[in-house]
Amino acid sequence: MSKKIKIINGPNINLLGRREPEIYGNLTLEEANIKILKYSQKLKFEVSFYQSNIEGEIVDQIQNCHDKNGLIINAAAFTHTSVAILDALKSLKIPKIEVHISNIYKREEFRHKSLISQEVNGIICGFGINSYILALDGIKNILNEN
Amino acid sequence: MSKKIKIINGPNINLLGRREPEIYGNLTLEEANIKILKYSQKLKFEVSFYQSNIEGEIVDQIQNCHDKNGLIINAAAFTHTSVAILDALKSLKIPKIEVHISNIYKREEFRHKSLISQEVNGIICGFGINSYILALDGIKNILNEN
Amino acid sequence: MSKKIKIINGPNINLLGRREPEIYGNLTLEEANIKILKYSQKLKFEVSFYQSNIEGEIVDQIQNCHDKNGLIINAAAFTHTSVAILDALKSLKIPKIEVHISNIYKREEFRHKSLISQEVNGIICGFGINSYILALDGIKNILNEN
Amino acid sequence: MSKKIKIINGPNINLLGRREPEIYGNLTLEEANIKILKYSQKLKFEVSFYQSNIEGEIVDQIQNCHDKNGLIINAAAFTHTSVAILDALKSLKIPKIEVHISNIYKREEFRHKSLISQEVNGIICGFGINSYILALDGIKNILNEN
Amino acid sequence: MSKKIKIINGPNINLLGRREPEIYGNLTLEEANIKILKYSQKLKFEVSFYQSNIEGEIVDQIQNCHDKNGLIINAAAFTHTSVAILDALKSLKIPKIEVHISNIYKREEFRHKSLISQEVNGIICGFGINSYILALDGIKNILNEN
Amino acid sequence: MSKKIKIINGPNINLLGRREPEIYGNLTLEEANIKILKYSQKLKFEVSFYQSNIEGEIVDQIQNCHDKNGLIINAAAFTHTSVAILDALKSLKIPKIEVHISNIYKREEFRHKSLISQEVNGIICGFGINSYILALDGIKNILNEN
Amino acid sequence: MSKKIKIINGPNINLLGRREPEIYGNLTLEEANIKILKYSQKLKFEVSFYQSNIEGEIVDQIQNCHDKNGLIINAAAFTHTSVAILDALKSLKIPKIEVHISNIYKREEFRHKSLISQEVNGIICGFGINSYILALDGIKNILNEN
Amino acid sequence: MSKKIKIINGPNINLLGRREPEIYGNLTLEEANIKILKYSQKLKFEVSFYQSNIEGEIVDQIQNCHDKNGLIINAAAFTHTSVAILDALKSLKIPKIEVHISNIYKREEFRHKSLISQEVNGIICGFGINSYILALDGIKNILNEN
Amino acid sequence: MSKKIKIINGPNINLLGRREPEIYGNLTLEEANIKILKYSQKLKFEVSFYQSNIEGEIVDQIQNCHDKNGLIINAAAFTHTSVAILDALKSLKIPKIEVHISNIYKREEFRHKSLISQEVNGIICGFGINSYILALDGIKNILNEN
Amino acid sequence: MSKKIKIINGPNINLLGRREPEIYGNLTLEEANIKILKYSQKLKFEVSFYQSNIEGEIVDQIQNCHDKNGLIINAAAFTHTSVAILDALKSLKIPKIEVHISNIYKREEFRHKSLISQEVNGIICGFGINSYILALDGIKNILNEN
Amino acid sequence: MSKKIKIINGPNINLLGRREPEIYGNLTLEEANIKILKYSQKLKFEVSFYQSNIEGEIVDQIQNCHDKNGLIINAAAFTHTSVAILDALKSLKIPKIEVHISNIYKREEFRHKSLISQEVNGIICGFGINSYILALDGIKNILNEN
Amino acid sequence: MSKKIKIINGPNINLLGRREPEIYGNLTLEEANIKILKYSQKLKFEVSFYQSNIEGEIVDQIQNCHDKNGLIINAAAFTHTSVAILDALKSLKIPKIEVHISNIYKREEFRHKSLISQEVNGIICGFGINSYILALDGIKNILNEN
Repeated sequence: MSKKIKIINGPNINLLGRREPEIYGNLTLEEANIKILKYSQKLKFEVSFYQSNIEGEIVDQIQNCHDKNGLIINAAAFTHTSVAILDALKSLKIPKIEVHISNIYKREEFRHKSLISQEVNGIICGFGINSYILALDGIKNILNEN
Repeated sequence: MSKKIKIINGPNINLLGRREPEIYGNLTLEEANIKILKYSQKLKFEVSFYQSNIEGEIVDQIQNCHDKNGLIINAAAFTHTSVAILDALKSLKIPKIEVHISNIYKREEFRHKSLISQEVNGIICGFGINSYILALDGIKNILNEN
Repeated sequence: MSKKIKIINGPNINLLGRREPEIYGNLTLEEANIKILKYSQKLKFEVSFYQSNIEGEIVDQIQNCHDKNGLIINAAAFTHTSVAILDALKSLKIPKIEVHISNIYKREEFRHKSLISQEVNGIICGFGINSYILALDGIKNILNEN
Repeated sequence: MSKKIKIINGPNINLLGRREPEIYGNLTLEEANIKILKYSQKLKFEVSFYQSNIEGEIVDQIQNCHDKNGLIINAAAFTHTSVAILDALKSLKIPKIEVHISNIYKREEFRHKSLISQEVNGIICGFGINSYILALDGIKNILNEN
Repeated sequence: MSKKIKIINGPNINLLGRREPEIYGNLTLEEANIKILKYSQKLKFEVSFYQSNIEGEIVDQIQNCHDKNGLIINAAAFTHTSVAILDALKSLKIPKIEVHISNIYKREEFRHKSLISQEVNGIICGFGINSYILALDGIKNILNEN
Repeated sequence: MSKKIKIINGPNINLLGRREPEIYGNLTLEEANIKILKYSQKLKFEVSFYQSNIEGEIVDQIQNCHDKNGLIINAAAFTHTSVAILDALKSLKIPKIEVHISNIYKREEFRHKSLISQEVNGIICGFGINSYILALDGIKNILNEN
Repeated sequence: MSKKIKIINGPNINLLGRREPEIYGNLTLEEANIKILKYSQKLKFEVSFYQSNIEGEIVDQIQNCHDKNGLIINAAAFTHTSVAILDALKSLKIPKIEVHISNIYKREEFRHKSLISQEVNGIICGFGINSYILALDGIKNILNEN
Repeated sequence: MSKKIKIINGPNINLLGRREPEIYGNLTLEEANIKILKYSQKLKFEVSFYQSNIEGEIVDQIQNCHDKNGLIINAAAFTHTSVAILDALKSLKIPKIEVHISNIYKREEFRHKSLISQEVNGIICGFGINSYILALDGIKNILNEN
Repeated sequence: MSKKIKIINGPNINLLGRREPEIYGNLTLEEANIKILKYSQKLKFEVSFYQSNIEGEIVDQIQNCHDKNGLIINAAAFTHTSVAILDALKSLKIPKIEVHISNIYKREEFRHKSLISQEVNGIICGFGINSYILALDGIKNILNEN
Repeated sequence: MSKKIKIINGPNINLLGRREPEIYGNLTLEEANIKILKYSQKLKFEVSFYQSNIEGEIVDQIQNCHDKNGLIINAAAFTHTSVAILDALKSLKIPKIEVHISNIYKREEFRHKSLISQEVNGIICGFGINSYILALDGIKNILNEN
Repeated sequence: MSKKIKIINGPNINLLGRREPEIYGNLTLEEANIKILKYSQKLKFEVSFYQSNIEGEIVDQIQNCHDKNGLIINAAAFTHTSVAILDALKSLKIPKIEVHISNIYKREEFRHKSLISQEVNGIICGFGINSYILALDGIKNILNEN
Repeated sequence: MSKKIKIINGPNINLLGRREPEIYGNLTLEEANIKILKYSQKLKFEVSFYQSNIEGEIVDQIQNCHDKNGLIINAAAFTHTSVAILDALKSLKIPKIEVHISNIYKREEFRHKSLISQEVNGIICGFGINSYILALDGIKNILNEN
């Protein structure tokens, strides 16, 4: 049976392709999701996507992931400010991967500190849209090993 | 023609399998390298390995990578203290991936700060030995896109 | 005539009973509310409950409390990050009690700092669900004295 | 043709006239908006207003401003905490003015630091409701000069 | 059989009623103790009181509490400076409640940090003399649950 | 009768037009003053200008403003270092506006901190020479309201 | 009628003359007190002395000064660590002068910070035993002016 | 032969009597100087006064004091910011007393740190105009002892 | 003639054997002292013991050691907070050894900083009760060398 | 059978006797080692010595100690900077003692912080060459107790 | 044609030879200037000197250097405090060398931080009066290379 | 007889000419050394060169310089991290000059702090390869003066 994976994107990721393309690339979120979807099918993953600019809605979604087999989260700006998302992740007992499209360590100082890294299994950062694809591989490995 | 990838490991990684196995797993460095080698052949990568406990020897090795197609570096303890490795990476113009076996954000505060992240393309952290394998995939993607 | 008391709970409190039971106990939020409700009737208090994972909705609710006789707030994760809730409390001129289920000083460093304590009458922390019940007593005393 | 200007107000600004009138004055938000509207007509500006206590809704609104000719934002409490609003402003390429009703430097230390100032054209602070009116003048000047 | 509870007050609490009455209220320590005593009898508690301005004498008293059923401590100024009291509390295995008469978060910055909170069960702060009474209720609940 | 307004400029503002024109624009101080003067006449303000590179001379000038109706001050580099100017402003009981030509929050970290903001009525920052003109409008409003 | 002045000395001041004479001089505490006593008689002051190495005993003494006309306190090491002494001083409504024999700003960094300065009328520091004599003069002036 | 004493006052002290009289008192600088002069004659001191708002002029004056027998300096705002005055004091080998009219420890945090205290013999703070008079006494004692 | 050595123990050391035995071991203070006494006789040392929970009493004892040949001090909690003990040690001109039973660097951050280390000859930390015995050896060596 | 003990010395310890003799004494490293060797024979210890100025070589040596019965390490300058040595010590499961020849707390601030103390059994500091000898005694005790 | 070089000295440099000769040497400023002048003639430089204790006058002088070929500046105490001098240097587009007579890193902590280093070509520090002479050589090299 | 000067270069300096030429220039290390050698002959200096990427080897070399007449050291990345090099310099009693090719104050914040400056005679920074040449001149002057 195929594994169910949730991909959650945080604030302003809906602007993908339009927002600072030199940093985030030219693909829109829809185009990126199609690419990710295609790859996930090779891994026999059933992927669903969620994006919101509202911190609390992301908390809601994370809480609802307990019947999923894995979570990939790009918390974007909330990475650096949200204890609520940290707490929601803390309560979720499935493989969790933190991703970032850009290399956050090449950017402003305040983007170097992630509040949520301590509550995920692994972190993947700086590979553009491929960060999500590597995260899918990463979950695959974790699921295989357990 | 196959691409040449260098994998450099920093101090105490030679103890793999013996050192804190609850954090680093039970594979020895030799066993891990065999696993990585096998995977790299699928990607048509020619991988060579280097490990040293001496910061300056790692600097030397990084300097010698200019004819490689990609570098994967787990600087281990030097991640948090070495400006010399940062400078060596700065001078190297090939795809560079920083990896960590454990999730460094679940460990002591001083391990949360990497000096070298700003000079690599991407970071992969917390997937055990699979961190190296995901890094190989990551380099594959970067090489394909350019 | 009975006094009207609002009890507001912040993010992830809806997970009560499921989230880290060794810290938060085994009662669900519904069970906890029933226990609180029962006690409030002894004090002739008319209690209403609100929970949200969205910071701004909590701000809305606080603004709407001006016709209540007392507010009990467990801002949870927002305790440590929300200036907006601080500002909403600042504008509310009724008895206000900050409660925490767990002893936040036994937990991570970042949970030791509450932004909102300066704008409440009193703080009760670490008594499990009884923190709410002690808060009701506390409001009773404040209302009796004025 | 008249220029379109968006005015966005953050959390608790809906309490204007009721909240700490010694700091914010006696006008309600509705009365203030009428005053601003009247002035904007002299400048041949078509002004629309938005207020929310929810950070993510403000992000949504900022994203939707790309067809406006200018933005005036009083992020209130979010000024000091929101990276998400900073990121939304970063993606918006129209004149942007940050305003504050009160002089935030006469208040608590934590109100002295604005996260968003680096992503606006200009800042106006401390003139009461007139801060918005000066901001309209400021946008007028910017539009005339380009 | 009635439970034995110790109430320990730190430096300058003997000035109660004379010291900054706008913060601490008008009751003297003797009057306050009578009020607390009366309430404790309803709970069938046998309460004994101790006050000292000398840190080491308070340490002595805490050490002697091992045959009590609960401790209520208002360490006053020592709250913010005494590692010795922290250590004494660490060695005492009975329910321990930290109380403060005033809301210490409305006062000077240096009063916001308590060294001892990490070694008590719960904290009650800002209810005037009623802080002690709520603490008695709190201990009652803890004793009932065990 | 026309109101008297003093405009004081701090160190290196005499270089206007020559100094970093990409930040400060191409107008010289003389040309800027003419533009400001013209606008002030519409408001029926009698404006006088002062510039010095010497902190103490600026203190002298501020002390002499007690018979003026308003002060506009661009303290330039002294904004970030001068307690003496802060003290002089503290003693002056007329409307005082702090202006900056550039958006100081887009520049070096040490320019983000103004020592004097706490002693002015309002701050205007980032509008080029128009910062002064908006400040004149701001003073107009303050004088009208009193 | 002669005014009553209390002079309180903190820890290790009893070693005067023996302890670091290059800093504290060669007079013993007894000899110093005789010199101070002599001078106080010229001012028609009735001086009494107290020294203790125990913080809480100093708190006791300060509390007992409410029938004195002035207090001179050299809290010595407690100057830098005692909130309890600060609180005791806060409750005492008579002229209070802080003195130091040595210039504490020529010594270790941690001696530069006095916790109690904010609760005294004046500070005199660095004049050797004459610091006490100048303090007597200072109290004389304060008493004369009221 | 009478001893020559210089009294140097820093920025804004020329406003004495007009500036924040609740802090600095009602005497003007001229009236204060007359009072100080009168007292100095009792001590057979020949006092001369200097005040400037310009840091460098104060440095000049300090350099010229090498033929004086003592210096009393109230560096006012420069106390907290001037390394140049510190350096000038360092080169001057006569008795030097730092005075402050107000108790600087009851005021803003940034006024608690004096750069120059380490280069004076003694400090007198918080006695109003009498601070200068006590400083004259202090110099008298120093001169008598040498 | 045998040398006289004082051993001073700070707060809560009287609880030895009862307090956190996993850290401090199972010996009571009395049993430990007997063990130390026995060893000291081999070195021909005449050892006397003192323990107090009161900082000032420890200061008194240190002052009285001037006729001893060596001091061993375990200041316990006061290690991290007492300037008074530091000052007392500063005045004592005999060999002084600081000991800790546990390795304080394996414990809470605030226990890593000793105020008194700068005023002792040597430090011995982490050997359980043997820390005292090694300290006796250490003093032996120092006395032999002088 | 005699126990095997390794003694590792870090950078610049090879200069012993030549380097700052007022701090480190007059013995050369060779002379010191002979003295240590002699003492170790009384304890029936078989001691071997290693010194290097290269951090990584010290890491190598520590890794090779797993067949030893105890390690004494004076990491010298690396004490304050080397995470690699910390990690090597973490993997070594034999008694480990950190020694320092001088009292590092009497020296520069940066020498007060040891990175490695948390991974050793005990610390001995300030006894000159005898620090090593006391460390041998300390290991003796640890080995006897297990 | 000979190149024109300006040498600007900051506060208290006029005391050279009299001020702390163990740090600054025995030459007076006049003697030093003669030595510098002589050397400059070998390089065919036309050197002019300026010294002031007034920050703003130094700013004036720097502004006037735009027709010079090089600037050597010893800002002395202003090195560590003057943003105004930094700004003046920023506007000056000729070779600029910062010099210090003493090695500022051997002195107080606050002298280790130079505000102006980021706006000069090179820094020369610690060579006594020869620092100026090396700076002349340095400018020579820069002028030759362009 | 000609003086012997050692020039030591730290990590990555061997990349000169290839590494960030916009910062370090186009000369290779070999070409630079030839230029330096030529100049040294004019000064009658016998120069020898050493470069290593290994911190400990640089320590070795510094230790071996005791028979040289001067040392020029560009510790590169180790400048900011090596206490071991600091200690080696501390033991070397010959003229020592710290050089930097680039102006380290125009680069990242962490390059602004040199650990070793306090142990050299002088510092020369920002003159490209000429930094070494100025350093030779600097040593010449020091040798001539002694």
